[in-house]
Amino acid sequence: MLIIDCHGHYTTAPAAHQKFREQQLAWMEDPTLPVPRPAQISDDAIRESIETNQLRLQQARGADLTLFSPRASAMGHHQGNEAVSLAWARACNDLIKRVVDLYPENFVGVCQLPQSPGVPIAHSVGELERCVRELGFVGCNLNPDPSGGHWNSPPLTDRHWYPFYEKMVELDVPAMVHVSASCNPNFHATGAHYINADTTAFMQFIEGDLFRDFPTLRIVIPHGGGAVPYHWGRYRGLADMLKRPPLATHLMRNVYFDTCVYHQPGIDLLARVIDLDNILFGSEMLGAVRCVDPETGQYFDDTKRYIDALSISAGDKRRIYELNARRVYPRLDALLRARGL
Amino acid sequence: MLIIDCHGHYTTAPAAHQKFREQQLAWMEDPTLPVPRPAQISDDAIRESIETNQLRLQQARGADLTLFSPRASAMGHHQGNEAVSLAWARACNDLIKRVVDLYPENFVGVCQLPQSPGVPIAHSVGELERCVRELGFVGCNLNPDPSGGHWNSPPLTDRHWYPFYEKMVELDVPAMVHVSASCNPNFHATGAHYINADTTAFMQFIEGDLFRDFPTLRIVIPHGGGAVPYHWGRYRGLADMLKRPPLATHLMRNVYFDTCVYHQPGIDLLARVIDLDNILFGSEMLGAVRCVDPETGQYFDDTKRYIDALSISAGDKRRIYELNARRVYPRLDALLRARGL
Repeated sequence: MLIIDCHGHYTTAPAAHQKFREQQLAWMEDPTLPVPRPAQISDDAIRESIETNQLRLQQARGADLTLFSPRASAMGHHQGNEAVSLAWARACNDLIKRVVDLYPENFVGVCQLPQSPGVPIAHSVGELERCVRELGFVGCNLNPDPSGGHWNSPPLTDRHWYPFYEKMVELDVPAMVHVSASCNPNFHATGAHYINADTTAFMQFIEGDLFRDFPTLRIVIPHGGGAVPYHWGRYRGLADMLKRPPLATHLMRNVYFDTCVYHQPGIDLLARVIDLDNILFGSEMLGAVRCVDPETGQYFDDTKRYIDALSISAGDKRRIYELNARRVYPRLDALLRARGL
Repeated sequence: MLIIDCHGHYTTAPAAHQKFREQQLAWMEDPTLPVPRPAQISDDAIRESIETNQLRLQQARGADLTLFSPRASAMGHHQGNEAVSLAWARACNDLIKRVVDLYPENFVGVCQLPQSPGVPIAHSVGELERCVRELGFVGCNLNPDPSGGHWNSPPLTDRHWYPFYEKMVELDVPAMVHVSASCNPNFHATGAHYINADTTAFMQFIEGDLFRDFPTLRIVIPHGGGAVPYHWGRYRGLADMLKRPPLATHLMRNVYFDTCVYHQPGIDLLARVIDLDNILFGSEMLGAVRCVDPETGQYFDDTKRYIDALSISAGDKRRIYELNARRVYPRLDALLRARGL
């Protein structure tokens, strides 16, 4: 059995990369500054940043492979403009590609998109295509709120988003719904904005007919689906009140939840309520919560421990750890098959 | 043991009441129209609206008493202006008072506030005081986002809100954090906006120091605390990462969750994760989800069934059903004691 972590971010990229971002934003303020260029980063710097962090923990915790994307909170779609967002997304994705090339058995790429408030999502299609066709990435992170907490884009079920979904279907890649930092002081990024976005996206899908229009579109909602599994009765009831089909057919052939829920009772609920075919192992490592749980003595985000502790069969665990990810990310499956896995 | 439902709304008010609201909003559009006056509603009309709905279900489901407030989704703080909001809040609260006077053993009042975007919360103090001192209400619903989904007020921990908290402390009444309808198409009201607001408020409390400044302030977060209990590990970890005190001392002497979680696994998680002293029975009846769960054959919002099914002692159930509510709402306790209860 392979252990595939569907949700990892390069939160530890060398400082020069973040410095490029700061130069970008400074240049936005003062265009007389030289146009910033992506940082020159050595293989050794990348190796150190990975081997002391994500790779070390991946191996220590017993995972085989991480679907690896740029740091979500740093996507910062609300900052800069479309050109800045594109340059930043390309630099971030290129860095992911270098990690993958250095550790092809441990990391597979998932891309950031060059979204920008008010810019048609069709303008993100090119970078998706580049990352999938040229860099070999297997999925993308789609931000439902590029404003960073003002929520002034149309819902994900609006035709606004359709050009992007068409390309996802054509390339056969899923999207993880993932917001970035919040510039709204009401919303702490990882404690409110992320979770709210997950909940919001799911309810939008209930209200809409997205998967009637795109029956093969696949969406991963991270952080255990936000509030959804805990309120599963509410969502089943709302679907009924809104005269929608049952969730099992209306959404759950297309929507998946990861396991980024940082305590045993939460994972127990997830596995009790949600069909195991819709759950993908994920840790968000290194991400929102990097400390040790004093109640268990283990890291909060060592989510594999919680899944290992579930009272389900080895076959069911394999669905969560491997088989669902291979089904949701067919390009990952193809890549593994080519390696005889 | 008394069964006290801390979360009920007058969602079935006679149509004339809603017509007054429509007249208000029409008058905002066209001030040449006559100034609308609150509807004249007969006792019989109120009796019918209550006896066929909330009272019938309260009795059928075995609750004794409901903390009863105006329909939350109709508060509509984002509509009209301050004067309109005040007239509407007064009319809504006066109607609650009439229900309470007709059924004093079954309903106790909780008030709506005349909030309006950009208006200082101090302007809501008068209506709180009127409802508590003159009408005998025991709590209030405080809207953290009077914009209806644009989230442009300061966080609940900001000093903006302090004049209101000072009055709450003086009157010794708690607030339930409760948003109203959403005018943001991203957020379905009961499926996203409500739950997001609950999650958001809790995370604001983690970030802030509200209960250091108001050690006796009490806040009820409805809908089972939004996403919080499901992500309890995340919140414990975030508190640690943000160098905040442990949640037990930082928040949980002041913050309470209701049981408006519409399936057994959700209530099981709530009771497993959250100290039972912080859980108050609530149903939100008649509220967000009014249909029967085909999986159980029972109404989704008959939350008493889920609590009855918990594997906890009768004494623990009494905390959830009665004792916590009496502690959080001292004016309710005083009222019950005066009746020998």
